Amino acid sequence: MKELDHLAHERSKSQFDVDAMKIVWAGSRQAFEVSDRIARLVANDPAYRKDNRVVLSRKELFKNTLRKTAYACKQIIELHLSEEEASRLRFFVDEPAYTDLHWGMFMPAIKGQGTDEQQQKWLPLAQKMQIIGCYAQTELGHGSNVQGLETTATFDPKSDEFIIHSPTLTSSKWWPGGLGKVSTHAVVYARLITDGQDHGVHGFIVQLRSLDDHLPLPGITVGDIGMKFGNGAYNTMDNGVLRFDYVRIPRSQMLMRVSQVTREGKYMQSDVPWQLVYGTMVYVRQTIVSDASCALSRAVCIAVRYSCVRRQFGSENGGPETQVIDYKTQQSRLFPLLASAYAFRFVGEWLKWLYTDVTRRLAANDFSTLPEAHACTAGLKSLTTSATADAIEDCRKLCGGHGYLCSSGLPELFAVYVPACTYEGDNTVLLLQVARFLMKTVSQLGSGKQPVGTTAYMGRVEHLIQCTFDVHSAEDWLKPSVILEVFEARAARLSVACAKNLSKAPSPEEGFAELSADLLEAAVAHCQLIVVSKFIERVQQDIPGKGVKEHLQALCNIYALSLLHKHLGDFLSTGCITPKQAALANEQLRSLYSQVRPNAVALVDAFNYTDHFLGSILGCYDGNVYPKLYKEAWKEPLNDSVVPDGYHEYIRPLLKQQLRIAKL
Amino acid sequence: MKELDHLAHERSKSQFDVDAMKIVWAGSRQAFEVSDRIARLVANDPAYRKDNRVVLSRKELFKNTLRKTAYACKQIIELHLSEEEASRLRFFVDEPAYTDLHWGMFMPAIKGQGTDEQQQKWLPLAQKMQIIGCYAQTELGHGSNVQGLETTATFDPKSDEFIIHSPTLTSSKWWPGGLGKVSTHAVVYARLITDGQDHGVHGFIVQLRSLDDHLPLPGITVGDIGMKFGNGAYNTMDNGVLRFDYVRIPRSQMLMRVSQVTREGKYMQSDVPWQLVYGTMVYVRQTIVSDASCALSRAVCIAVRYSCVRRQFGSENGGPETQVIDYKTQQSRLFPLLASAYAFRFVGEWLKWLYTDVTRRLAANDFSTLPEAHACTAGLKSLTTSATADAIEDCRKLCGGHGYLCSSGLPELFAVYVPACTYEGDNTVLLLQVARFLMKTVSQLGSGKQPVGTTAYMGRVEHLIQCTFDVHSAEDWLKPSVILEVFEARAARLSVACAKNLSKAPSPEEGFAELSADLLEAAVAHCQLIVVSKFIERVQQDIPGKGVKEHLQALCNIYALSLLHKHLGDFLSTGCITPKQAALANEQLRSLYSQVRPNAVALVDAFNYTDHFLGSILGCYDGNVYPKLYKEAWKEPLNDSVVPDGYHEYIRPLLKQQLRIAKL
Repeated sequence: MKELDHLAHERSKSQFDVDAMKIVWAGSRQAFEVSDRIARLVANDPAYRKDNRVVLSRKELFKNTLRKTAYACKQIIELHLSEEEASRLRFFVDEPAYTDLHWGMFMPAIKGQGTDEQQQKWLPLAQKMQIIGCYAQTELGHGSNVQGLETTATFDPKSDEFIIHSPTLTSSKWWPGGLGKVSTHAVVYARLITDGQDHGVHGFIVQLRSLDDHLPLPGITVGDIGMKFGNGAYNTMDNGVLRFDYVRIPRSQMLMRVSQVTREGKYMQSDVPWQLVYGTMVYVRQTIVSDASCALSRAVCIAVRYSCVRRQFGSENGGPETQVIDYKTQQSRLFPLLASAYAFRFVGEWLKWLYTDVTRRLAANDFSTLPEAHACTAGLKSLTTSATADAIEDCRKLCGGHGYLCSSGLPELFAVYVPACTYEGDNTVLLLQVARFLMKTVSQLGSGKQPVGTTAYMGRVEHLIQCTFDVHSAEDWLKPSVILEVFEARAARLSVACAKNLSKAPSPEEGFAELSADLLEAAVAHCQLIVVSKFIERVQQDIPGKGVKEHLQALCNIYALSLLHKHLGDFLSTGCITPKQAALANEQLRSLYSQVRPNAVALVDAFNYTDHFLGSILGCYDGNVYPKLYKEAWKEPLNDSVVPDGYHEYIRPLLKQQLRIAKL
Repeated sequence: MKELDHLAHERSKSQFDVDAMKIVWAGSRQAFEVSDRIARLVANDPAYRKDNRVVLSRKELFKNTLRKTAYACKQIIELHLSEEEASRLRFFVDEPAYTDLHWGMFMPAIKGQGTDEQQQKWLPLAQKMQIIGCYAQTELGHGSNVQGLETTATFDPKSDEFIIHSPTLTSSKWWPGGLGKVSTHAVVYARLITDGQDHGVHGFIVQLRSLDDHLPLPGITVGDIGMKFGNGAYNTMDNGVLRFDYVRIPRSQMLMRVSQVTREGKYMQSDVPWQLVYGTMVYVRQTIVSDASCALSRAVCIAVRYSCVRRQFGSENGGPETQVIDYKTQQSRLFPLLASAYAFRFVGEWLKWLYTDVTRRLAANDFSTLPEAHACTAGLKSLTTSATADAIEDCRKLCGGHGYLCSSGLPELFAVYVPACTYEGDNTVLLLQVARFLMKTVSQLGSGKQPVGTTAYMGRVEHLIQCTFDVHSAEDWLKPSVILEVFEARAARLSVACAKNLSKAPSPEEGFAELSADLLEAAVAHCQLIVVSKFIERVQQDIPGKGVKEHLQALCNIYALSLLHKHLGDFLSTGCITPKQAALANEQLRSLYSQVRPNAVALVDAFNYTDHFLGSILGCYDGNVYPKLYKEAWKEPLNDSVVPDGYHEYIRPLLKQQLRIAKL
C-alpha cells in the first residue's frame, strides 16, 4: 500500500510552478538533473545509510566513515562519474571525511602554491589517491593569525634539506582534518629559516606516514584530538595533532611558486604575483557561502514541513488544533529564515561569477578589483555562516521539544555546521577586515578614486547621507528601488559615522581598536546590503514558470524588511527612516507572511532534498511524523532489554532499601 | 611541584574583595559554606568522575549514571546530609538523572495535588525510594497545550477503578524523564471520564513496573525515546515513551485534592482553591531562573578565563600576542554576558522571595497578587532561559576553534541546557501569556484598579509615554534612576502601542493573533525591565567588602546599557531616547568595559566553581590550558592504536590502487 502524503493538502495550495522553482534553486536545468540523479543514487544505496550514526561509538563511527569513503571512491571510478557528479556524490553522502581535505585543501594548495614541476610530480599521485593529503596550518596556540605560527622549517645547506620542527608545545599542529589517522602527507605551514633569518610562513609538503604500513615516520608524533560537538557530526573526521622532532625533507618539497630557496640557501621571490593567494581565498569562501545556503535550506525544510504537521492549541468545538505554521509568531521567525535560504543561494551563485571574473582579471594581470572582491567574499562568508548557524538552532527551537531528538536531524546539522563560523577565517576577524576596507574606501572618496563593485554605492555618499524616502504606505515598502537605497543609506551612514569617530582618535590604530564594535556593525550593514542587492538583481532577471518570479519577489522583500526590523536601531539612529515608516514596514511584513503561508511547503520542496539527505523524521516528505518517531524510538540500544543493564546493581538495592549493606 | 597559576597576574589586578563577592553570589555566608563544602566533596571523589562521559556508548553512559545516582543516595544517607546539602550534592554531581524527576516533579505533584491521606500513603514510600516516580504529562502529539492531552482515565463504577488508556498513537506519553527505564510509578495526566462525560485533564498515580523484577505491568508498553542532542548531555536520562492498554488502577489513585470522583462516580470540586496550582508553577519556574544563572555563569567563567589565556595578533617586536580579552569586540560580546549572569542570579534570589510571599498570601486566601506573580515568573523563565541558551553558544564561539572540542565543556553545557527553553512552558507560549496579562493591565488602567508588583510602573503610564530624559553626557547614563525610567518608558510605550493597535482589530482574538510578534516584543521589554530593576535594587542594598558594590554597579550598568544597544530600535521608535543619547550610552558602555577588564577573572572566580564542576579545560582555574588539551587528546579511544581499525579494509586498498578488485 502506498502511504498517504500527509502534506498533500499543503502542496495543493501552492500558487506557483514548483518544478520551475527547482531549476531556479539548482541554478540550471543541467545542474538540477545531475543533482537529482546523484541524490537518488545515494539515497537508494543502503551502503550510505546514516540514521545509525548517533548510536555508534567513536571507533565504530570512524571506521564506518572509512568504509563509506572507500565505497564512494570505488563507485566514482566504476560509474565513470564526472568531476561534477563526483562532487555531488560526496555532498549527498553528507559525512565529513578526510577526502574533504584531500580534494578541497591539499590539492588546491599544491595547485596554487606549487611550481609546475611540483604540480606535475604531486598532483597525479593525489589524483589517483596513491597518497592522501591534509592541510596542516593551525597550531594549538595559533589560529587566525597565520603569521604567528611557530613551527620552523630550517634550511640545512649541507644536506640540501629543510628540518621541520615543533619548538614548543603550542606549536603542535592542531585541528587539521584527515591528519589524525589517515593522511600520508600534509602541506605543512612553517616559518622558513635560512642562514638564521626568519622569512615568515611558507608551505611544505611533508610525508607523515609510511606508504607500506601506515606507521608514522621517524620524528613524527601524530594522533586524533578527541571528541567534538555532537554525537555523529564532525566526529566522523580525524582532526589531528602533529609534532615534528627535527624531521628532514628535501628542499624540493617547499612550495616554491611564489618564493624560493636556492641550492645555496638564498631566499628569493619569484615573479609570480603574491596576490594569487587571494584568488584561492575567494574560491574557498565562495564555496562556504554556497554550503551555507544548503545547510540553512535543510533546516528550514525540516521546520516548515513539521510546522504544518504539528498542531497546538486553538481547537474549536473539539476539532483539530491549529497548525503551528499558522501562528504569526512562528511565521515571523520561520519565514525570514526561508527567505534567507534563497538569499544566500543567490548571493552564492553570484560569488561564483565573481570568482571567474577575478580569475580572468588575474590572468590578465589586472589586480584592480581584487581588494574589493576579497573584502566582499570575506564579509559574505562571515555573514552567511553566522546567520546559518543561528538559523539552524532557531529551526530546532521552532520544532518544539521533538527538535531536541537526534532523529529530528537538527542537533547533528547544527553541530556539524557551526565550525564554519570559525574555520577559514574567524567571523569576527573577517568582519574587521571588511571594516578596514570600508574605512579605506571612505577615506579615498575625496581623492577622485571611484569605489568599485559592491562598494560602488559609496560614490553617491553625499546623496545617501542626507536623502529621505517616499514611504507613506505599507505598499511603498514593496518597491525594490526604495529597499535598495534604504540599505545603501544605512550602510553608507554607519561607515561615514565610524570614519568620523576614527578621525578623532589619537591614532588610527587606537581608534580602530576602541571603536571595533561599531565597525563590526558597519561591516554587517555593508554585507547585508550586498545580499539584498543581489537578491533584487536575481529577481529582476527573466524567470520562467507560473508564479515563480512573484514568490521570489515576496521572499526578497521578506528578507530585506525582516532585516530592517531586526536592525531597526541602525536605520532609526542614522535617520534613514522614521518610526512611522518602520511601523509601515512591519505592517507590510505581516502581509508578506500571509502571502507566503500557502506556498511554504512548495518553497521548501523546491530544494528537492531526499529524505535520506534531510535525515530528519520531522522533515520527511510525506509528513507522516508520529508513526515514524514512534518506530524509531524502539531502535534505541537501551531498548534492547526490557530491564536495563545496571538494574540489579543500582536500582533494586535502592528500592529494596539495601543501600547500607550494598557495595556500589 | 605545585603547578603555576597562569592567571595569577590577572588575579593580582582585581580591585575588589573576591571573598566578599563570593558571599554575595552565594546569597549568604551559610549558603556559601554549604556549597563550598559539598562542591569539594564531589570534586574530590573519583566516583563522580565525568570527563569520560562523551566517549561512552548510550548503554555505558546510562549505566554509569545509575551507578553515580545510587552512590549519591548512599552518600546522602551515610553522611547524614541535610535536605539543602543533598540538593547541593545532586547539583554538583551535574548529571541529569531519574532522581531529578522523582524529587522535583513526582513528589511535588503528590504534595500539591494529593489529599492528606494520599500524601500520607505515597510520600513516605517515595521519600525512602521504595518506589521511584516520574511525571507523565506530555504526549507524542501534545506538548504545551495540556488541555489537548488524549490519554483517558475512564471510571468503572462496577469495580471502583479507573481504566487508563492510550486511544491513539499521538496519545503515547513521550518525553517524561526517568520513565524509559527506571520509574516504578508515574503521575499520569489523563482526561477524566465519568459516565460518558469528559471532565478535562487530571492526575493519577499509576504503577508501571513490578517492584519484584522491574518488568512492565500488564497493559503497559514502555521504553526509551532514543538519542538526544549532544554526546553525554541529557542522554544520561531515560526520557521515555509509554502506552496504556486499558490499565486498571484503584479509584483512590486519582489525585483528589482539588477535585474528586466519589464511589458512585460523581465528579465534585473540593473547597481547595484551584489557584494553588499556580503556586507550584511559581516555585518550579523560580528554580529554573536560578538554574539559568548557574549555567550562564559556568559558560562565562570558561570564556573569561580562556580569553585571558588565549593570545592572537598584535605582537610587537616579537613579543607576546595580545590577550583576546583585550579586544573591544571580545569585551562587547563577553562582558554583557558576565553582567547577565549576575543579573539573573539576583532576579532569581528575588523570585525566591516572591514565592514565599505568594505562599504566605495563599495560606491567607489572598489571591490578589497571584496573576502578577504568575506572569512575572513565566516571563522571567522565558527571558532567562532563552538568553542563557544563546549565551552559552556565544561563549563557545568566543573561545574560537577550541570551544568546539568536548573537552572545552561548552558543547555539552549547551546541549544539556537548551531543553530549558522548551520544558515547563515553551518560551514563546509563556511570553504570549505575559503579553496577555500586560494588555489586561493596560485595559484596566482607567478603571481605578492599581497595577501591583512588577507592573506598578504602569500606574504612571501617562507620565511614561511622554517623558524625556536629561541625558547630555555619557556620565548621565550611570544614574540608576535614569536607566530605570528609560526602561519603564520603553516597556510602557510598547504595551500601550500594542493595546492601541489591538483596539483597531475586528476582534480581540484576531488582533492578538495578528499582532503577536509585536506583543512578544512588548513582553520582552517588560521582563527586561524587571531584571534591570531588581539588579538596581540589589546594588542599592548594603553590601560589605572592598569594591564589591562599585563593581556590581558597573555590571548593572553594563547589563542595562547593552540591552539598550541591542534593542535600540525599541527605544528610538518609541521616542524614549534620541540618537545622540544612544551614542552617549555606547560611549559609556565602552568605558564600563575598560573598568571591568582588570576585574574580569576575579568576577568569575567569585562563582567559586571547582574544576570538576566546570568540566572544562579551557576554563581551568590555573589557566594551564595547552598542556592539558594536549594531554587530553591522547585519551581519545581512536588513539588506542597507531594504525586505525579499518586501515587494511578501507585505506590501504585506495593507496595501493586495489579498488577495482577489493570488495568493500
